[in-house]
Amino acid sequence: MAASLTSRTLARPAFESAFEPPAFLAAMLAFEAALAAGEAAEGVIPPSSAAAIAQACKAVSFDVEALVAEAKRQGTLVVPFVKALRAATGAISRDAAEHVHHGSTTQDVLDTAMALCLKPCLDEADRSLEAAVRALARRAREHRATPMAGRTLMQPAVPITAGLKLARWATALAQDRERLADAAATGLAVQFGGAVGALEVLGAKGPAVRHRIALALGLADVPEWQSHRNNWIDLLDRLALVVVTACKIARDLALLGQAEVGEMREAPPQEGVGGSSAMPHKRNPVGCLHAIAAATRMPGLIATVHAGAAQLEHERALGGWQAELVAVPEIAGALGSSLDFLDTVASSLVIDAERMRANLAACGPAPASTDAVDELLGNLAPYLT
Amino acid sequence: MAASLTSRTLARPAFESAFEPPAFLAAMLAFEAALAAGEAAEGVIPPSSAAAIAQACKAVSFDVEALVAEAKRQGTLVVPFVKALRAATGAISRDAAEHVHHGSTTQDVLDTAMALCLKPCLDEADRSLEAAVRALARRAREHRATPMAGRTLMQPAVPITAGLKLARWATALAQDRERLADAAATGLAVQFGGAVGALEVLGAKGPAVRHRIALALGLADVPEWQSHRNNWIDLLDRLALVVVTACKIARDLALLGQAEVGEMREAPPQEGVGGSSAMPHKRNPVGCLHAIAAATRMPGLIATVHAGAAQLEHERALGGWQAELVAVPEIAGALGSSLDFLDTVASSLVIDAERMRANLAACGPAPASTDAVDELLGNLAPYLT
Amino acid sequence: MAASLTSRTLARPAFESAFEPPAFLAAMLAFEAALAAGEAAEGVIPPSSAAAIAQACKAVSFDVEALVAEAKRQGTLVVPFVKALRAATGAISRDAAEHVHHGSTTQDVLDTAMALCLKPCLDEADRSLEAAVRALARRAREHRATPMAGRTLMQPAVPITAGLKLARWATALAQDRERLADAAATGLAVQFGGAVGALEVLGAKGPAVRHRIALALGLADVPEWQSHRNNWIDLLDRLALVVVTACKIARDLALLGQAEVGEMREAPPQEGVGGSSAMPHKRNPVGCLHAIAAATRMPGLIATVHAGAAQLEHERALGGWQAELVAVPEIAGALGSSLDFLDTVASSLVIDAERMRANLAACGPAPASTDAVDELLGNLAPYLT
Amino acid sequence: MAASLTSRTLARPAFESAFEPPAFLAAMLAFEAALAAGEAAEGVIPPSSAAAIAQACKAVSFDVEALVAEAKRQGTLVVPFVKALRAATGAISRDAAEHVHHGSTTQDVLDTAMALCLKPCLDEADRSLEAAVRALARRAREHRATPMAGRTLMQPAVPITAGLKLARWATALAQDRERLADAAATGLAVQFGGAVGALEVLGAKGPAVRHRIALALGLADVPEWQSHRNNWIDLLDRLALVVVTACKIARDLALLGQAEVGEMREAPPQEGVGGSSAMPHKRNPVGCLHAIAAATRMPGLIATVHAGAAQLEHERALGGWQAELVAVPEIAGALGSSLDFLDTVASSLVIDAERMRANLAACGPAPASTDAVDELLGNLAPYLT
Repeated sequence: MAASLTSRTLARPAFESAFEPPAFLAAMLAFEAALAAGEAAEGVIPPSSAAAIAQACKAVSFDVEALVAEAKRQGTLVVPFVKALRAATGAISRDAAEHVHHGSTTQDVLDTAMALCLKPCLDEADRSLEAAVRALARRAREHRATPMAGRTLMQPAVPITAGLKLARWATALAQDRERLADAAATGLAVQFGGAVGALEVLGAKGPAVRHRIALALGLADVPEWQSHRNNWIDLLDRLALVVVTACKIARDLALLGQAEVGEMREAPPQEGVGGSSAMPHKRNPVGCLHAIAAATRMPGLIATVHAGAAQLEHERALGGWQAELVAVPEIAGALGSSLDFLDTVASSLVIDAERMRANLAACGPAPASTDAVDELLGNLAPYLT
Repeated sequence: MAASLTSRTLARPAFESAFEPPAFLAAMLAFEAALAAGEAAEGVIPPSSAAAIAQACKAVSFDVEALVAEAKRQGTLVVPFVKALRAATGAISRDAAEHVHHGSTTQDVLDTAMALCLKPCLDEADRSLEAAVRALARRAREHRATPMAGRTLMQPAVPITAGLKLARWATALAQDRERLADAAATGLAVQFGGAVGALEVLGAKGPAVRHRIALALGLADVPEWQSHRNNWIDLLDRLALVVVTACKIARDLALLGQAEVGEMREAPPQEGVGGSSAMPHKRNPVGCLHAIAAATRMPGLIATVHAGAAQLEHERALGGWQAELVAVPEIAGALGSSLDFLDTVASSLVIDAERMRANLAACGPAPASTDAVDELLGNLAPYLT
Repeated sequence: MAASLTSRTLARPAFESAFEPPAFLAAMLAFEAALAAGEAAEGVIPPSSAAAIAQACKAVSFDVEALVAEAKRQGTLVVPFVKALRAATGAISRDAAEHVHHGSTTQDVLDTAMALCLKPCLDEADRSLEAAVRALARRAREHRATPMAGRTLMQPAVPITAGLKLARWATALAQDRERLADAAATGLAVQFGGAVGALEVLGAKGPAVRHRIALALGLADVPEWQSHRNNWIDLLDRLALVVVTACKIARDLALLGQAEVGEMREAPPQEGVGGSSAMPHKRNPVGCLHAIAAATRMPGLIATVHAGAAQLEHERALGGWQAELVAVPEIAGALGSSLDFLDTVASSLVIDAERMRANLAACGPAPASTDAVDELLGNLAPYLT
Repeated sequence: MAASLTSRTLARPAFESAFEPPAFLAAMLAFEAALAAGEAAEGVIPPSSAAAIAQACKAVSFDVEALVAEAKRQGTLVVPFVKALRAATGAISRDAAEHVHHGSTTQDVLDTAMALCLKPCLDEADRSLEAAVRALARRAREHRATPMAGRTLMQPAVPITAGLKLARWATALAQDRERLADAAATGLAVQFGGAVGALEVLGAKGPAVRHRIALALGLADVPEWQSHRNNWIDLLDRLALVVVTACKIARDLALLGQAEVGEMREAPPQEGVGGSSAMPHKRNPVGCLHAIAAATRMPGLIATVHAGAAQLEHERALGGWQAELVAVPEIAGALGSSLDFLDTVASSLVIDAERMRANLAACGPAPASTDAVDELLGNLAPYLT
């Protein structure tokens, strides 16, 4: 889908642009250049062809509207893309033109480009997550003994400390971060299989070329995954778990920030943030809004990629795979909204210990122990340096 | 999310642009102009203010990037939008500026604009569906006695006629069309409730103003639906049913179009359609691809709007509603892809009665009766004139 | 799936038993008896055979465990079911045995039985919905002028009246009820198509037999819907909308019932309801729990039936349809949980006007108008007699 | 939901019984016994109490219907369960009765019991997966050079070898198996947190007691996860990936087993398997049916647990968590159906090299290289011993 105006108002700019035409075309070109270089290094095509292709990858420009129209007609973006790149290469060297995209196919380019475009998003997620964990761990240590009401099933239970709640949030995000890095190590991989995944044009040199492409692009080197995509889906699932945790925190903050509760807010009230077109005095929790909206969308998006991956006919799918071409940027977008929220929390979280004490009356006078929070803070030590 | 390059290659252009900034801003302005006109007609604001606002709605221009950035910061597109419109109105009449957006709120503008943007998509769907039903009904009549294999659980069963299969497709689409029109009659409605849905600023004049807005915009007039959205969700559900039927047909065609089967194709092979970057000789079923990819996405999108609608806190939601701001244009987009497929089928479906007869041997010699197809053709009579 | 212990603790007993072996087998037998009677009336089989089959349908008993095991092995419940019924019929009349299940197939029996089992659930839903609307409309009238805080994005907005909130709940449920009845009129239908949907064994008598079966079973008479199921899916979608509304109300009640808010509760505290294994003093909102858990599950279930319906290959699906055999009883189960909640609300809702007034201070002193609630109460007049 | 008859016909018996009352109550009792033993070992309760509780856990019996009814009324299964266990313990030792469930709460028992019930399912999955990988790897080696048509977008592409397709299936399953084992190592964990997750009743001894419970039950020892459940969700996600792969294989087999293609079948035709109530001659691919139906359901189930996990308010959720009480057994059930399919494939897969060669004509004469399959077979070496 095109960028609807309303969806843009929920997007993190860097994550928006990560899959827009300039970035995506650059990623496709990066694949083609790495492919040519790898094939030249393995003696599959002449070095001069690789050089010409590399030069063409820098020089070529695309009429995006025409490209999109032709891609739709063909059912693949790669046919008109390769045609344009081949023309640009031919302008440099007639011989090199026939070596463009040699031995490769649509899904090689698109899957690899998708991984390349997701990569900076994951790097940014890693940084945001680390910052959020550090900030929350520090606040947890600071409030390790601040009593507040524990609440279960939306009713007062027994007291906890604010530090315990904060340390749990930090722990959950730290685990999400680790899981994501773990999945990215194999899930962020080059896709290279040729027409039916057998790299039949390259014969025995296929794996070596693939290895070179992976190295050049900073992606994992694994056998083609065009019809068995679970390494990739696993990465998306784990990305979705970040969105889950962000939403849980946002839900807690929205509840704690109610006028009648007043124990925490995502940020201090600020002119020009969270206003209302009907009630200018309002200060809505905008970060929570982004995190909750993102998490409302994510289960459906994850369902989509699981459903698509389950119906990949034979050596390349008709429709099941292509659904990802829409869903993956959306998944990254939902992650972006969650990071926006986490960034706000990391920098601006407001904790009102007085209101916590006042509300505590509702669930009894008992002071809370700090054993549980201390256990979590111990685990979070690397983030508390 | 912004328009990823890959998602654009699956989109129907008119459905893409329906929610892009120019169209969506125009719809928001149409709401504000109709609001002012309605309030003037009911004596809530002076006619001169309504005239100035109408004029400003034509004159105002927006810096989309700045608008998006500010909308994100505020958590609502309507705050910066109204600010700009108020400024444009003030340039015409200082007094009128304060009457801009009078008694209204964010969700009034966005929900109504969303309905306005969906409207032409539904009109287009109606036309495509009618054409597809007509074409398929005619082909069904033509092949009412052409024998072909009936297949169940992916195995040969007993013979049917090609006409029966075609008449079923036509019948399903005709019913989808009728259901959609039925839901649109109440689901495509004005949203107008003010800050908390009570139109408290307008007092007893609220419903009359709402009625005038609805008339002006060609939408149904119903009480506000900001936190109970089932009329709207029902419309989206029924829209999703079109995508279901299109996918079922596409799946059948993809199966019938296999080299080993060869009984039907979505269209004759055509230069420049359905090529492959690795195998130039290929003619992939591009329409089927679009319909199947759309249907792979739709269950997740429908899950999203149901999930959002179930968690609409109090008088306006935090996140549950806003998830729709992304999902609804996506839902329309998936519908658009399905219509592209149906248009192809309506104009180009290829039926190979010879291959049908040849394959029939696998499931026995019995000729099929035409009673079942005749019953369906009777019901399809309005489409066979 | 079998009944997990934990799932049973969330189920409405009548909805549990509606799809359990006794009820489902009774529905399957009802189909077979109606089929035989219909075929006898149309001269397809001898009246004596229909009588014997009817008698066998009363006399036959099933070893459920053996039936399930054989059904799994065969991939269809109907093969061992018909075998047993044929044996029971043969014990009465050897000639009649061959007329059992004549001209019919697996999906005819299962789809029709599913509709028959869902029917009493829908009847019960209709009664619960009517009672809930009546109760809420009355409470709305009673509190039409009781001021309470309006809240948007989880923050105080401007005042509303309690009656407005209650009237909205009532209105939403009334609309859901009407929509459901509307969809049931065509969606609760007999399925009868024979091996490939053509009723080829019955020739021109097919529709007449189908009509007799529908009349006998109290279901709508429509042409077979084995691979185009949108009438049925539409019914399930609309059933899901009831769950959406119940959850929205439950969410509001859970928020209003927080200790710090205290404006409404689903019911007065009651010994033995909503206790905790750790905190015996607690009174958790059990009805809300059921409604929210049901609504958390429903989007996924609706996604399942949409996804299944989109991939129905040829004349009967391999897997896509069979997924419904699990999902439909689950969907009914989620509806049942929602009705449990609505029943509680209808009988026991607690409204604390004092706390409402006290909390109102947070969003300003203005008294709310009753225009909006009066409009809704006007529409609810049929429920206020 | 209770066991619908139809859902039972798709279930794997061992997976059905894993969550039924006997098994689930046994798991709950195992938790309580381990809790008491752990608390006794740490000096929290007297050893005599632990002994009495252990004895009561063996002796106690439950009236399941009464338990379910009371659980529903209370909103938790654990209140009536503990009441019964306390009574049984009191009959052995009055003093011990008060030590039953000491320091624990509902979610501790249910989450831990759920993990305990899932454990044997995962063990069985591991065995089935290993057997399937071994069988497919062997068949891949056997057919490493057997040429067959490669197919993309449902059209002939260029040739592959049958071994390549088989080796890909094996590789995907081997990776799923490894991923699952990896997630189980932390996701299959004890839950122990007490009223609000702080184990406040046990003070500094909490973690030591938890460690002892984990050891006794063979589960991982991690801090409580009642409101941050991503370790657990990650395990469920990875379990879902097995279902994805099984469905992809099933889809391929269903396509290859079409009468017009005839290259592979899940098993040889067998009397009493895959029959039809209308067409006794049919031999439907029952294993594929199970795998595809399971995969049609799974995306919705995964969406459910993600959605639930994102809305866990405060220290224990109202509804979001409880949705898992239904969903997790369903998820296991879908896995069970997939394993049934894999078991069939492992033992009975039919490969028709002759038909492969005959069909190959459609996509050209070129013989396929074995480089790609040899790379995969190298990685599968551990399964080829």
